[in-house]
This record gives sequence, structure tokens and C-alpha cells, in this order.
Amino acid sequence: NINPQRLWDSLMETAKFGGTAKGGIRRLTLSDEDKQVRDWFKAQCEAIGCTVSIDEIGNMFARRPGRDNGLPPIAMGSHLDTQPTGGKFDGVLGVLGALEAMRTLHEQGYETNAPVEIVNWTNEEGSRFAPAMLASGVFAGAFTAQYANERTDRDGKSFGEELERIGYRGEEKVGAHKFGAMFELHIEQGPILEDEKKMIGVVTGVQGMRWYEVTVTGQDAHTGATPMYLRKNALVGAARIIEAVDAIGHRHQPGVATVGLIENKPNSRNVVPGEVFFTIDLRHPDEQALDAMEKEFRAALEVTLPPMKLAYEEKLIWNSPAVKFAPELIACVRHGAETAGYAMREMVSGAGHDAAYIARVAPTTMIFVPCEGGLSHNEAESTSFDECAAGAQVLLNAVIEHDRR
Amino acid sequence: NINPQRLWDSLMETAKFGGTAKGGIRRLTLSDEDKQVRDWFKAQCEAIGCTVSIDEIGNMFARRPGRDNGLPPIAMGSHLDTQPTGGKFDGVLGVLGALEAMRTLHEQGYETNAPVEIVNWTNEEGSRFAPAMLASGVFAGAFTAQYANERTDRDGKSFGEELERIGYRGEEKVGAHKFGAMFELHIEQGPILEDEKKMIGVVTGVQGMRWYEVTVTGQDAHTGATPMYLRKNALVGAARIIEAVDAIGHRHQPGVATVGLIENKPNSRNVVPGEVFFTIDLRHPDEQALDAMEKEFRAALEVTLPPMKLAYEEKLIWNSPAVKFAPELIACVRHGAETAGYAMREMVSGAGHDAAYIARVAPTTMIFVPCEGGLSHNEAESTSFDECAAGAQVLLNAVIEHDRR
Ligand SMILES: NC(=O)NCCC(=O)O
Ligand SMILES: NC(=O)NCCC(=O)O
Repeated sequence: NINPQRLWDSLMETAKFGGTAKGGIRRLTLSDEDKQVRDWFKAQCEAIGCTVSIDEIGNMFARRPGRDNGLPPIAMGSHLDTQPTGGKFDGVLGVLGALEAMRTLHEQGYETNAPVEIVNWTNEEGSRFAPAMLASGVFAGAFTAQYANERTDRDGKSFGEELERIGYRGEEKVGAHKFGAMFELHIEQGPILEDEKKMIGVVTGVQGMRWYEVTVTGQDAHTGATPMYLRKNALVGAARIIEAVDAIGHRHQPGVATVGLIENKPNSRNVVPGEVFFTIDLRHPDEQALDAMEKEFRAALEVTLPPMKLAYEEKLIWNSPAVKFAPELIACVRHGAETAGYAMREMVSGAGHDAAYIARVAPTTMIFVPCEGGLSHNEAESTSFDECAAGAQVLLNAVIEHDRR
Repeated sequence: NINPQRLWDSLMETAKFGGTAKGGIRRLTLSDEDKQVRDWFKAQCEAIGCTVSIDEIGNMFARRPGRDNGLPPIAMGSHLDTQPTGGKFDGVLGVLGALEAMRTLHEQGYETNAPVEIVNWTNEEGSRFAPAMLASGVFAGAFTAQYANERTDRDGKSFGEELERIGYRGEEKVGAHKFGAMFELHIEQGPILEDEKKMIGVVTGVQGMRWYEVTVTGQDAHTGATPMYLRKNALVGAARIIEAVDAIGHRHQPGVATVGLIENKPNSRNVVPGEVFFTIDLRHPDEQALDAMEKEFRAALEVTLPPMKLAYEEKLIWNSPAVKFAPELIACVRHGAETAGYAMREMVSGAGHDAAYIARVAPTTMIFVPCEGGLSHNEAESTSFDECAAGAQVLLNAVIEHDRR
């Protein structure tokens, strides 16, 4: 059995790297805070005899040998980066829960058949560098390493430069590790488990998601001296699209549609805005429904903006199709939750996860635990001591079960 | 007669302090670029024998003595600060046109009865530190010097700190100068003069303007895992208000209504926005119409946001009532334009100007010249060689006429 207090202490200890006044974490990928938590993680893994290797885009692998090291390793992992105002559990629980499982194997001297690895995937959040799940995507062949290196943040700094700056560009070729399986523990980030009082979410897949970027161009002008009928106000145009996107989400439930980021230029109180950049996030478990949402979004641009004398550019920058996880691994999670006596339910993930890409190259699945009010990507994100412990225990049980089978 | 080439050369020379790739100027008040243009201006005034004094909030006064130095000085002036993506003429023409008038007096050895002064007012734009016309407002008793010093920009730096940093806090008490009159030359910043092919706008007043700040608060949440019906999306709420404000402007023409600045938090592609800050600028020549616009704006907040489970705070941060200029000075401008043979028309300014505050403490008026397409607060802002010359000539004529009377 895992040690719940040790897991909790590690969660609270690492929460200090980028800890915010409101009890959350700001640990953007490849920032100084990301380096701090990576250093800590490496030291902890080495302290229990694991060998840590790093690939060319900063993915970290901590390996504990098995009885037969010719077998492909069983991986457990998630990510240590966070949103700009993120919580203490999103991603972190999956890595530290894996660390706790590994510490338990080590302490007990339990010998697995296959080697076991903990993985920390780079830039899962996609908040600093879009898209999300970037480095697991490269690992799975969805993107090239060059593509990852060339992503830039909103200040123009590149992934590649920042990776080198914090000293986490490794030697290993991306994707050189071949997993026998991967299990990712994560908080649900939605309200269902809490609502239904279930401790464990048995995750059968991930919904499809598409990201877009839009730039609306009008004309900077004086707010006092420019009559209403002469304006080309890019922000009013963007406002109409923001509303249209929200309406698309409402029409296509359980799909969701969001504008999360907006940059207004020149952003001055007495200037009619001349240019607005914003992003769109559309998701649905059903790819055909996603197609329909995309069509409606594009129609909204075309119907709304030109009559306002506004030009626009629109680009699909990311398309992550719906994913189904491996039945034999799902069975291991069910077995692990049963053994530990937890109530569970099957569910499809609304959030994207590294597991969604890894499923392309290895049998993969996920384990969810509840979070208070379904709240995530929020500094108030909260998962209890018992819920964290339950997740790590089921993770360990599932790994052992898979290894035994 | 003024020297049009010398005026143009000075305009182009100072356009380098903060010059942008697109031919505009970025010279935010109290920035390094503002210091550069101030240093240049001081040197030029001293080169023609003027004495330059600076008051406690950075207003600069360049004085040329008259025959009777007991008489209150006749002031000519405007501002050298610009918008973040401003043009080469807004404000600058008023200061350099005055410099050209002064150079002409000097060159001709023309002796005025009263002393004549050129003024450069600090922070007219209000873009870095709100509100606009801040230092002329202190000069006229609308604000205290302490209020000005405590204004902060969006990065939290204060007016007082920044004034000291660039070395332009003077010794003189604000308002110690008592003007006999002030004339402000400016580009129109709107389309009327160009439309009607008039060279000179005889400005009879300035419309009323009110600035507000709004913060809308919802809840940060995951864009993928948060169902539409559970969201408290602050950006969708803000978008509705942006549209409502635009509609208020359209309903109350010739009034105008604008959201110019917006800050979205946490501004991440996969986070439902939890907090949005934005500003509103309402203007109308008629104070009663402004009252009605304000009422409709407040009603829009109340009707729109609470049903979306969004909280908000709203604050009127600036109220600059409609202003009427001094008839005896307006007559001098008419006379000056007639003498020079320019077509003119009377008009009310849509933009705010330092003259609007100075009118509270001295007889004041303004002279407008056209700008291409009525475009201002835009890097493409353009006023021709001849138009700049015409403005400076009428300014000089009006000052001499006033001095003569
Ligand atoms: N789990 C998680 O928050 N991932 C970020 C990627 C996304 O779903 O937007
Ligand atoms: N003239 C000018 O652009 N002033 C800025 C103040 C305002 O009207 O917003």
C-alpha cells in the first residue's frame, strides 16, 4: 500500500515552486519554476535508485529495472507544468502519484517483471506554447521535434531557446523509449465524479479538440473625434465572435466552445481598437459534431466581420481527434479500483492529456479522481488527501496487475 | 510670416524620438523618449533666448519677455507625449507650431506688449496614466498635484516616480503662472475640415467626456472539462457590454461610446476567463445626453451580468464637462485666419485638449487644421506641409492680434 502522507507532503513541497498568494501555482513550462521542480523530481527519483534520462525536448524518464529488462517498460506519468493561475493538482498528481507508487515498490523491494518508469512530459498545458500536449505529441509522432522547438510564446521566446536556457535539453532521441503500457493518473477537472460520489473515474477516451487563432483588423482611430458611422472597431467585431462561439458551445452540448485568450491593440482608453487577436477552443466527443461546430464558427466570422468593414485571418492551429483507450489497460484500472474497494464510473475526458497522444504508440489509459466543484485551471483547484491517496493506490494496483498479466 | 520649412524640419526631427517602423511615434508620457524630446525642446527654446521653467509636475514654460513684463503672458502650447501607436502631429504640432511662431518673433525682433510663452503640458494623452489632460487639469485646479503623482500605469509605476526618473520634476508651484490668454493649435483628429475643404477650424468648445473602469468577475475554469451551463465566463459578459456600449454610441450620435482597453485573466487558451478589466469612454457635446448615455451603460451592466452569474465593479474615474471657449480669443483666431486668407468653419472639438482645462483659469481657445481621412491616434496620421504651416501662421497672427488689442 502506498503512503498517503508521503504523497501529500510531496504535493505540498513542490507546490512551493511557483506557489501563488491565492494557494495556486504559476509554473509555466520551461520557466525558472519549471526548472526548480524538475531538479527536485530528478533528485527524488535518484534517491530511490532510479536512473533518470532526458530526451531532446525535455521529457524526463525515471527508470526502475524489472526482472526482465528486455521487456518494454510500463510507464506512469503526467506533467509538472501549470497554467498561469493553475492549481496544485492538475498534472502534478499524476507525476507525484507515480513517484509515490515507485517509492512504495522500492520500499517493499517489490520486483516487477518489466521495468517501470515515471514520465514528466514537457509543455502539457499549452498555455505558454500552443498547442497543448506538445512533447507527448512529438513522442507519439504527431509533431516533429523541430516543430516543437520553433513554437514561440506571446513574447516571441521559442520553446527551443527556453529549453536550453533551463538546461533540460537531453541527449536521447524523442520516442526512443518504447512503452509496454502507459497509465496516467489525473484529477477529473470536471464535476461528474463529485456529483455522483464516485472516487475513481475509469477513463475510456478523450474528446476531440481543435484550436484556432483569429486576427481581426479594423482601423485605430480617436475615440472622441471619430463618428460612430466611420469606425472600423476590431474589438466590437471580436466581441460578436466571442458571443457567437459561446452560443455554438451551448447549441452543441456536451460539446464546449471558448475564447480563452485575447489581445487588443493598441489597448489605449482613447483609441478605437484597430486590431484584435484571439484564440478559439472547440471540443466534442464526436468528430462530426466538431465539424459542424467548426462550420458554424467560420460562418459567424464571414457573416459578422466584413459588413462591419473588418478584415480577418483565421487559422486552425491544432486538431487533436477523439481517442479511445486500450481495453486491456482499462480492465487493469477497474481491477485496481475494485481491489482497493473504491466506487467508480466510466467516463470520457473533457480535458486533453498526454495519454491521448501516447495512445497512438502504446496501450494507454487514465485514472481520474474528483476535484472540488469540478474546478480546475483555477488557483482554488482542490483534491483531498484521501482522493489523492486513492488515485495513487489505484495507479499502483493497475501497474502491478498489468505487470502480473 | 512663419518659416514653413523650418517648422516641417522640426516636426520630422522630433518624430525620431520614439519613431516607429510604420512612421508613427510611440512616446508615452514620462518615458525615455519623452525625456529626449523634452531635452530637445528646452535646448531649442534657450537657443532663441527664452527662459525655460518647469513646474512640480513637469509642465514646461519657455518665456520670451514683452515690453511690459508686469502683464500676464500670452501662452501657446499643447503636448509632446503620444499614444502607444500615435502619429507625428497630435499635440506635437501645437508645441512646435508655437516654437515656430516664437522663432519668427525672435528672428524679426518683434516686440510684444505682454510676455509670450510656449507650454508643453505633461500627460495629455491619458494613455499611460489615466485620466487625459492630467497636468493641465492640476494647473487649472481640477486635480491636486498629489492626485497626479499617485496615478499609476498598468504596470503599477507611478506618475511621480517616473517624473523623477526622467529628471523633469521642477521647482515651480503648479499654477503659479497666470496667463492672460492661451491659444492651442492642434490637428482636428476628425473628418470635418477635410470633408468641407476648410483649412482652419475655429474651435468654440470641447464636448463633455466621461471615463469609467469596469471589472467583471466570474470563475476561471477548464475549457475542456467545464460544461457550458456551469460556466461563469467573464469574457462573454464583457463582450456583451462592449457591444452594448457601441450601441449606446450609435443611439446617441453625435455622441460617441467606446471600449478602448481590455485585460483578460488569466488569458490562456484553455481557461474559461475568470476576470476581465475594461475601460469605457463616453462623449457628447450635451451634458444631458451624456447623463442618458451613462444611465444606459449602467443599465446594460445590471441587466446583462448578474443573470450570467457574473459580479462586477464599475467606477466613473473621470468627468470632464463640456467647455465653451472665450469669444474674444475666438475673434482673434477668426481675424488671424482672415488675414492669412484661409477658409474656416466653427466647430466643437470631439477630442479632449489641455485647453479645455486651461479655459477654467484663463481666456482660452484653439485652432484646428485638417488631418488626412480624419485619422488620429493612428501611426498613419497625416497633416500636410501646407496645413501645418497654415496652423502655425494663424496661431502667430492670433497671438499678435490679441497682444495688439
Ligand atoms: N489536463 C489539462 O488541463 N490539459 C491541458 C490541455 C487541455 O485540455 O486544454
Ligand atoms: N487630443 C487628444 O488626442 N487628446 C487625448 C485626450 C482625449 O481626447 O482622449
